[in-house]
Amino acid sequence: MIQAAVLGYGTVGSGVVEVIEENRSVIKRNVGEELHVKYILDLRDFPGDPYEKKVIHDFTQIMEDDEVKIVCETMGGVGAAYAFTKQALAAGKSVCTSNKELVAAHGPELLALAAAHKCSYLFEASVGGGIPIIRTLNNALTADRIEAITGILNGTTNYILSKMEKEGASFEAVLKEAQEKGYAERNPEADVEGYDTCRKIAILSSLMTGKSVNYEKIYTEGITKITARDFAYARALGMSIKLLALSRRVGEETLAMTAPFLISSDSPLYTVNGVFNAVLVKGNMLGESMYYGRGAGKLPTASAVAADVVDCARHMGETLTCFWDAGEAALVSMDNVARRFFFRVKAGCKERIEKLFGEGLQEIQLPEASEETGYVTGVMKEKEFAALYEQIADVLAGSRIRIEA
Amino acid sequence: MIQAAVLGYGTVGSGVVEVIEENRSVIKRNVGEELHVKYILDLRDFPGDPYEKKVIHDFTQIMEDDEVKIVCETMGGVGAAYAFTKQALAAGKSVCTSNKELVAAHGPELLALAAAHKCSYLFEASVGGGIPIIRTLNNALTADRIEAITGILNGTTNYILSKMEKEGASFEAVLKEAQEKGYAERNPEADVEGYDTCRKIAILSSLMTGKSVNYEKIYTEGITKITARDFAYARALGMSIKLLALSRRVGEETLAMTAPFLISSDSPLYTVNGVFNAVLVKGNMLGESMYYGRGAGKLPTASAVAADVVDCARHMGETLTCFWDAGEAALVSMDNVARRFFFRVKAGCKERIEKLFGEGLQEIQLPEASEETGYVTGVMKEKEFAALYEQIADVLAGSRIRIEA
Repeated sequence: MIQAAVLGYGTVGSGVVEVIEENRSVIKRNVGEELHVKYILDLRDFPGDPYEKKVIHDFTQIMEDDEVKIVCETMGGVGAAYAFTKQALAAGKSVCTSNKELVAAHGPELLALAAAHKCSYLFEASVGGGIPIIRTLNNALTADRIEAITGILNGTTNYILSKMEKEGASFEAVLKEAQEKGYAERNPEADVEGYDTCRKIAILSSLMTGKSVNYEKIYTEGITKITARDFAYARALGMSIKLLALSRRVGEETLAMTAPFLISSDSPLYTVNGVFNAVLVKGNMLGESMYYGRGAGKLPTASAVAADVVDCARHMGETLTCFWDAGEAALVSMDNVARRFFFRVKAGCKERIEKLFGEGLQEIQLPEASEETGYVTGVMKEKEFAALYEQIADVLAGSRIRIEA
Repeated sequence: MIQAAVLGYGTVGSGVVEVIEENRSVIKRNVGEELHVKYILDLRDFPGDPYEKKVIHDFTQIMEDDEVKIVCETMGGVGAAYAFTKQALAAGKSVCTSNKELVAAHGPELLALAAAHKCSYLFEASVGGGIPIIRTLNNALTADRIEAITGILNGTTNYILSKMEKEGASFEAVLKEAQEKGYAERNPEADVEGYDTCRKIAILSSLMTGKSVNYEKIYTEGITKITARDFAYARALGMSIKLLALSRRVGEETLAMTAPFLISSDSPLYTVNGVFNAVLVKGNMLGESMYYGRGAGKLPTASAVAADVVDCARHMGETLTCFWDAGEAALVSMDNVARRFFFRVKAGCKERIEKLFGEGLQEIQLPEASEETGYVTGVMKEKEFAALYEQIADVLAGSRIRIEA
């Protein structure tokens, strides 16, 4: 029998206990022996909870129990979670986590610590909830050079954008409703400003390159400026607007960014709606493949943590392969990245716009909005667009949106 | 250095050599040492081929070379491929294959043989081409009880149906064009009659249940009776028509089948078009996740075989986990499966149809087809529908299509 401990009995932590105990028989088959949760560490007590007797308040108890071989860190944050993870790994106890902040901030250090102590640091649940994207990158697409990763990695913002699109509603109205329903946090900044997505693409970019992509250096733009009107233009263009996280190899460097994009209906990401997440991976031999599922939620996330526990239990005394060195990956400057851009200006400056942007400009006139006009530029570099865009600041009717071809 | 041999230098076999040699450095990183193809077995010679010196004609040479630890079987068929696979596994050489016929026919026997000789029998490329669905079921979704698998598993038929939908063309016209372009075989029976899809769902069903699902016992219906008119009705219903492979747990039994289905635009499978494949997996904790990519083609399929080779090379002397016993899985009779059905009758028998099918019947009258009427039934059992359908044989205007809710 293999014993595990769960740190933090919140939404994900209680889900992990539920998955491991409810799916006892399938997990036993997959591991080859029984797997149980021996301790649940939390500051609180849970009287009446079916697992209340497993609840303890002192991490030392877990560290001193040699029977506990696997620790699930579902506390979140980079304080106690970081300290406990280091202690566990240094003692040869594998750690499985859903904590993207900690993985993005200290991933390579914790992976190296695990390797030094013949155990594993696994973080499937940190990106894409229940979608097994980390395992796919580490263990499935192993004969390919991964060239690009494009993801919808945040369920809250995808829910908001899908609802704006479907109902023609404003960002503010949909956010308020999402907060009331519990789909968005009362402080929604981490989601709507793209910070959560940014950490997740930092992790995926690091796995793609094998080096460390610092999330603080990733260009990040949220969805707060997207309006109902923007979706009207998107519809006229046969497109949708999604908060995308991108990572691309550009020569020896990497382009990583998070921003809202117009995407065409040809993209497999076009129909990823509501709280669902998806990750599109391009390999040099495989071409494009996509992984789609619930990006958040108690049980999908817990299922991913529990699958990590199964992997550790199947490989006791080994370190599961993950290439992510501490050396920093070189990020390409956004300036020279070329793409098309969408922007909106007040009516009556057609000549000026056409003169500035020249060839390849496409005009979109919505019948219901004669007071303004939308434009899609030809393919141009970010810095070229930015320079021209600055010159039309006085006539803008909305904010520019990048187009992902 | 680890040496491999490739059996059969056709499309997939030559792709495997190309992937392993071109992606040498990424594969070396992933394996931890160099991996090379030492022999290519084929009856033919390949003068001028970059790897012509590796070509041999006698399988004994591979068997007698202890350096060869991994064999890629990309010959196809169940004759020599079966014999060679057994010999290799019995000698402790792992076998990686794209041969779905052999896997569907002799999977459990070959897996047992591999386990008895501390090597592996891997078949990622046998289902879904480059989509890592086998590895996902065996190694990623290990904390879930898999409840259902629904797939678009054949690129040729999906290409034909997508093109019929887009262009309003007939099955015959699109098939002819697909044959001219090389997307369909000159003898297209295995694809269009659903036999290829049937073998693939037999493999996935076996992995889901852990027992053997005999492909000969799976209800299989092809796409040859689908017409341009059917797609006009599908459009009116907001649906598409796809050749689906299903596998579902029904109590302790399993429902497995292959047939064309009407699917709604809410389904993540709705937008899987052209030669792409996708597999939707439902876990009891994870909910739905989907895996999408190129289901066929030289390099995607070869990439999957090569990823299996990497897995073997990472785990020399071990048998990689796969639960698929020889004992036969109990299949549920189709008779009691309940769903909605679509059918078409000649004009002028409305009263008779409504009397027969009663409550829940939905009528669809296409403006361009006043000579007939389409109907969608309420939810009813296959055998109930079949009995009623028989009674209206004299007025049918096309063939019935099941609806996947």
